[in-house]
Amino acid sequence: MREFDLLNHIYQSNGKLPDAVTIAPGDDMGAIRIDDDTVLAAVDQLIDQVHVDLKSHSLQQVGRKAVTRNLSDIAAMAAKPLCALATAALPRDFGKARSDELFAAMRDTAAQYQCPLIGGDVSIWDGPLHLTVTVLATPAGIEPVKRSGGKVGDVICVTGQLGKSYPTDHHLNFEPRLEIARAIAEYPATRPHCMIDISDGLARDLGHLCEMSNTSAVIEQSKLPCRNGATWQQAVGDGEDYELLFATDHAAIGSPGTWDVLGVPITVIGRMIASEDKPSVTIKLENGQQLDLSNRGWEHQ
Amino acid sequence: MREFDLLNHIYQSNGKLPDAVTIAPGDDMGAIRIDDDTVLAAVDQLIDQVHVDLKSHSLQQVGRKAVTRNLSDIAAMAAKPLCALATAALPRDFGKARSDELFAAMRDTAAQYQCPLIGGDVSIWDGPLHLTVTVLATPAGIEPVKRSGGKVGDVICVTGQLGKSYPTDHHLNFEPRLEIARAIAEYPATRPHCMIDISDGLARDLGHLCEMSNTSAVIEQSKLPCRNGATWQQAVGDGEDYELLFATDHAAIGSPGTWDVLGVPITVIGRMIASEDKPSVTIKLENGQQLDLSNRGWEHQ
Repeated sequence: MREFDLLNHIYQSNGKLPDAVTIAPGDDMGAIRIDDDTVLAAVDQLIDQVHVDLKSHSLQQVGRKAVTRNLSDIAAMAAKPLCALATAALPRDFGKARSDELFAAMRDTAAQYQCPLIGGDVSIWDGPLHLTVTVLATPAGIEPVKRSGGKVGDVICVTGQLGKSYPTDHHLNFEPRLEIARAIAEYPATRPHCMIDISDGLARDLGHLCEMSNTSAVIEQSKLPCRNGATWQQAVGDGEDYELLFATDHAAIGSPGTWDVLGVPITVIGRMIASEDKPSVTIKLENGQQLDLSNRGWEHQ
Repeated sequence: MREFDLLNHIYQSNGKLPDAVTIAPGDDMGAIRIDDDTVLAAVDQLIDQVHVDLKSHSLQQVGRKAVTRNLSDIAAMAAKPLCALATAALPRDFGKARSDELFAAMRDTAAQYQCPLIGGDVSIWDGPLHLTVTVLATPAGIEPVKRSGGKVGDVICVTGQLGKSYPTDHHLNFEPRLEIARAIAEYPATRPHCMIDISDGLARDLGHLCEMSNTSAVIEQSKLPCRNGATWQQAVGDGEDYELLFATDHAAIGSPGTWDVLGVPITVIGRMIASEDKPSVTIKLENGQQLDLSNRGWEHQ
């Protein structure tokens, strides 16, 4: 059973949530109301040998990524960072100097994005390095954008480039798309109907938008903004791009092409279409073939 | 280097925090302002073979404890639960049925205390079970009680009983003292000047209150409410009592003794005194001896 399926299963058996929970588990962040305010919250793990590799990544890179991948969740909601909390389970031989370096990287990254670290928990154990970062955010005047809400006819857009995130170290150096998300969500014509940040790969994360929006998607190979010579298979499958993927009104965007927001290219890669029996993601290849990406069939090409 | 020292070290190098951070790292919870509201947040880890033992504890017990020990932090601030998030790194052979049971226990415990689970992250890995729970809380009309603020002359009080938390399974079955904390914090005469929940043991956690309040403490062996025949050494050193430890105005409480709030005994165990060169914790033994607990000297008796 895959992690995403497991978490979904857990959430689906959640029963009735209090009315104060305005965004239920299963989105990039959950949200809850306090009096007149709303707080959004999300948490992620960063584990040595799973998400990072202490043998080849510096502590500065690991600490930064632990925070930025959570900031990417805030971007996916078009929300504004509020504060962060961190946990670390440190290997017994990790030592104070390395702990300091790691925490300094987390703290400084959090501060850089106006998301101060306000709490945490440290354990020392016999396992590998295990970090978590929890982030809180606020709408700050812009209604959060959920994964649901995509409409038939919407254009599907992506920021930046896709694929080859690991070999290019993009997964370590990426800029969370906080400002771009708020810029496009604030302007009614471009406001995304649904949005997610790409962590599991374009095909899977577009699948998540389709499932939550009850739509299907068709994307075009020729439109994919491939990073550094990535193949289309890498662009749809690699993951950890931490780019924004969203669907928005066709009228505002016009024909497929590239627009630019705050210096970052946004590319129209496809359209939302009506779902037949269940939500699916299809790619039109340059050779005219259409391929269903829902079952990761492209991996066996 | 101990975990507490390490975390303190990390926080002390935190630099200037934004003004919106109203309770800085190092307390039971951090706090930040949003418009007119305040949100408190804390996170804790629960690791197999460190905090629990999957060989002898049920998944129901483990899932419950992962949540209740965080609720105990909310109680220590006299705050009101808002919502929770959880992470799990599951051993590869853990299986779906056990994952479901574990998450159901976390979710149901959270719901029971009006602290709905609104998000999470699941990984599957080759390590042992590693859980984190993040809790958010609100003051809900009662100013949060910090670890600092204890005054010379204050009486030192503790809820419930101390020691032998492991052999009696109290560390699994305890009730987080949420209602009691709010009851005593709401009434001006009994409102704690400083408060903490006892997780590291009475001596250490009283030491934390003294350090943050710049006071010293004297407690009396004869006053210690010992659980199930615990020795005084167990009562001051065992840890994981998850009881409230606080200092409050002497006038409201009067002579040492036991009072009762919502059916739970609260015992006056000592007094805050002026700190000489640095904060210390001393116990008056029944044989007339006075012992400095600051260096855990009692462990070598």
